Amino acid sequence: MHDDSPEARWERRAEMPLTIASMAFLCAYAVLVLAPSPGTPWDDLWLLVLLAAWLLFGVDYAARWRLSGRRLGFVRTHWLDTIVLILPLLRPLRIVRIYESMQHRRGLPRLALHARVIAYAGISAVLLGFTGALAVYQQERDAPGTTMRTFGDAVWWACSTLSTVGYGDVVPVTTGGRVIAAFVMACGLALLGAVTGSFSSWLLQVFAAETGERPPET
Amino acid sequence: MHDDSPEARWERRAEMPLTIASMAFLCAYAVLVLAPSPGTPWDDLWLLVLLAAWLLFGVDYAARWRLSGRRLGFVRTHWLDTIVLILPLLRPLRIVRIYESMQHRRGLPRLALHARVIAYAGISAVLLGFTGALAVYQQERDAPGTTMRTFGDAVWWACSTLSTVGYGDVVPVTTGGRVIAAFVMACGLALLGAVTGSFSSWLLQVFAAETGERPPET
Amino acid sequence: MHDDSPEARWERRAEMPLTIASMAFLCAYAVLVLAPSPGTPWDDLWLLVLLAAWLLFGVDYAARWRLSGRRLGFVRTHWLDTIVLILPLLRPLRIVRIYESMQHRRGLPRLALHARVIAYAGISAVLLGFTGALAVYQQERDAPGTTMRTFGDAVWWACSTLSTVGYGDVVPVTTGGRVIAAFVMACGLALLGAVTGSFSSWLLQVFAAETGERPPET
Amino acid sequence: MHDDSPEARWERRAEMPLTIASMAFLCAYAVLVLAPSPGTPWDDLWLLVLLAAWLLFGVDYAARWRLSGRRLGFVRTHWLDTIVLILPLLRPLRIVRIYESMQHRRGLPRLALHARVIAYAGISAVLLGFTGALAVYQQERDAPGTTMRTFGDAVWWACSTLSTVGYGDVVPVTTGGRVIAAFVMACGLALLGAVTGSFSSWLLQVFAAETGERPPET
Repeated sequence: MHDDSPEARWERRAEMPLTIASMAFLCAYAVLVLAPSPGTPWDDLWLLVLLAAWLLFGVDYAARWRLSGRRLGFVRTHWLDTIVLILPLLRPLRIVRIYESMQHRRGLPRLALHARVIAYAGISAVLLGFTGALAVYQQERDAPGTTMRTFGDAVWWACSTLSTVGYGDVVPVTTGGRVIAAFVMACGLALLGAVTGSFSSWLLQVFAAETGERPPET
Repeated sequence: MHDDSPEARWERRAEMPLTIASMAFLCAYAVLVLAPSPGTPWDDLWLLVLLAAWLLFGVDYAARWRLSGRRLGFVRTHWLDTIVLILPLLRPLRIVRIYESMQHRRGLPRLALHARVIAYAGISAVLLGFTGALAVYQQERDAPGTTMRTFGDAVWWACSTLSTVGYGDVVPVTTGGRVIAAFVMACGLALLGAVTGSFSSWLLQVFAAETGERPPET
Repeated sequence: MHDDSPEARWERRAEMPLTIASMAFLCAYAVLVLAPSPGTPWDDLWLLVLLAAWLLFGVDYAARWRLSGRRLGFVRTHWLDTIVLILPLLRPLRIVRIYESMQHRRGLPRLALHARVIAYAGISAVLLGFTGALAVYQQERDAPGTTMRTFGDAVWWACSTLSTVGYGDVVPVTTGGRVIAAFVMACGLALLGAVTGSFSSWLLQVFAAETGERPPET
Repeated sequence: MHDDSPEARWERRAEMPLTIASMAFLCAYAVLVLAPSPGTPWDDLWLLVLLAAWLLFGVDYAARWRLSGRRLGFVRTHWLDTIVLILPLLRPLRIVRIYESMQHRRGLPRLALHARVIAYAGISAVLLGFTGALAVYQQERDAPGTTMRTFGDAVWWACSTLSTVGYGDVVPVTTGGRVIAAFVMACGLALLGAVTGSFSSWLLQVFAAETGERPPET
């Protein structure tokens, strides 16, 4: 498991600073959206944090590109990193990886595998919902005819969207808000499908184990 | 299957009283929400039942903690019991376990496994829907601008939410109601996914068996 | 496959008359709901067809109960038939079985298995949607404040419900309509999950076969 | 893999012209719907493109029917082609096949299988959504009481429908629009189920591989 290429060493060392940077990015964005204080130095500070974090992501991306010794192929195989560079709000989704690597859970039996997938997809869905609610709220709150007046409404919208319930009492009406919403739907569906599917498999295994049956292959 | 540790013995003996207590809890809560009679001794009686049941859950939790001989680790491995202690409305979900242990179905072929998962997840979903409808109805009924005027509306809301249809004709508007609703969505989705997935696997097996094919591994 | 017990012989012989009866039942019900002509002998005729079909189901149920030589156990193991006896509108779901038995597809490879499950669940879903639309339309059309004014609205409602999209532009408002709707949701979800799951498995197999890979076990 | 029957040779040669024709068909249809310029020769030109593409599909269908040397059996086994002939808007869904055949990905490990299914179903869903939005928009835009005033609304409707969220803020109200919508729902559900299911399986494999576990059969 110990890969000693320069790229792997960089990734191990950069992991923690990047995670802190991504959390700082999310915090700064949340403060700017939820509690803006125009005309005070606070807003400038948070904007600075935002830019600094973004710069850090850029430096990390450039360094890994260089260390890989490749050209455009790097952009293709690291498409997820490329997207994250352009849309840094998605960065916090990597927090989940950190949580995992801190646990060093290796060689656990298969039942734990489902629990891990549920935890990973579940935490990702919560982060996606929070980030999506922030981004949509920023687009929607001052739009004419909006139904999303408070951040609480935006969170409620995110819940009803990620669960595909979709009541329709709170909906984005601006083009920007709808584009973000469509992206949240697409990601959320996949993540939720993973949670649901894993939970279903896990339940089958638990029931099979209880009666001493051979666990089904599913 | 016969585990003779003090903890297992306690669990076997406490099973029946706790189930009765949880059913009494749900009944008392339902009566208090649906047919309150303020100023009469009846409400005090039901409140007493509520508190007595809660006390019983607390005693059971404390006893199992002591018998386990562990410290904080107990809280972590028994997180489900800890949640149930804080939110006793979820307790009735354990009724399903009783139903199971009364049936003593052991060594049944695999087809029965799917039926059991469907039954377990289905009953849990029904209980969750009823409990959720009660709790949301309590939050919503007197809110200004509510669309949930009768308990029938609340049950209809629960149906359309658990099935992820989400018409949006009846929606919670208070913060409390929305928090409960988000919780119901999350649990309901997982349970319903389990029902759907198991039904799908079961159908595949039935069809495979009908034509004498080797049952697929799925 | 040739079971020569009296019960099995009865079932084989009764299959066709019962199917015709169930189709006649559905037709008569549809005509009574969609094109009622009060005061003419036509309505009496259709009502007669309805009752005759119902009687036939009753006779079949009684005959099979007698032939089985069992008592109340029959009601439990044949719970589906018992439900169909009480709610004859569900009877047409058996049409699917006929379609199957007419095809006599035995020993087909596994790919066909998925196709069969999709066909079975899909046809059942269509029948369920049509029957549900009829039943809900009967409850709703004259209710005050209804949004389901034509049978087309009812069919549109059934589509958006069975697919769990749930726009909410057309919703049942009466208690009777909502009870039927909840039932349609529950059945529809399971059937649709079966269609979706089988289609997903089938797609995986097709793609695996295309590149000569070993087909995955899923 | 090299099938040298006349039919297979025809299919290989016809692949590229047919793909170009189907893309031209979709473009012409999109221009006619979104930017009609009545009274100018442009509209006639696009209509001509539409008809020419349709003619090409007809010639291809006829040629393959002849080469197969069969009679009505051809219509049954090639039902998908028959549908495409009647509803040429579905033709672009074949673009996905081209994408695949250009990649010549053979003998890849199983992880790539899931990626391929996700890509195929995902691209199909996007094409279906775009085509469906176009067709519904054409039906709805001038209907009285419509909520689908711009093509942006139609795309937003397609997103919320394909993800089964179904807010209900934009819904088709005409019969034609609803029929197309029901078709989009049915196809979209199956495609999305395939994306979700494959993503779920893929995630399980990635997690299993990370810790050196035996990959689960699911």
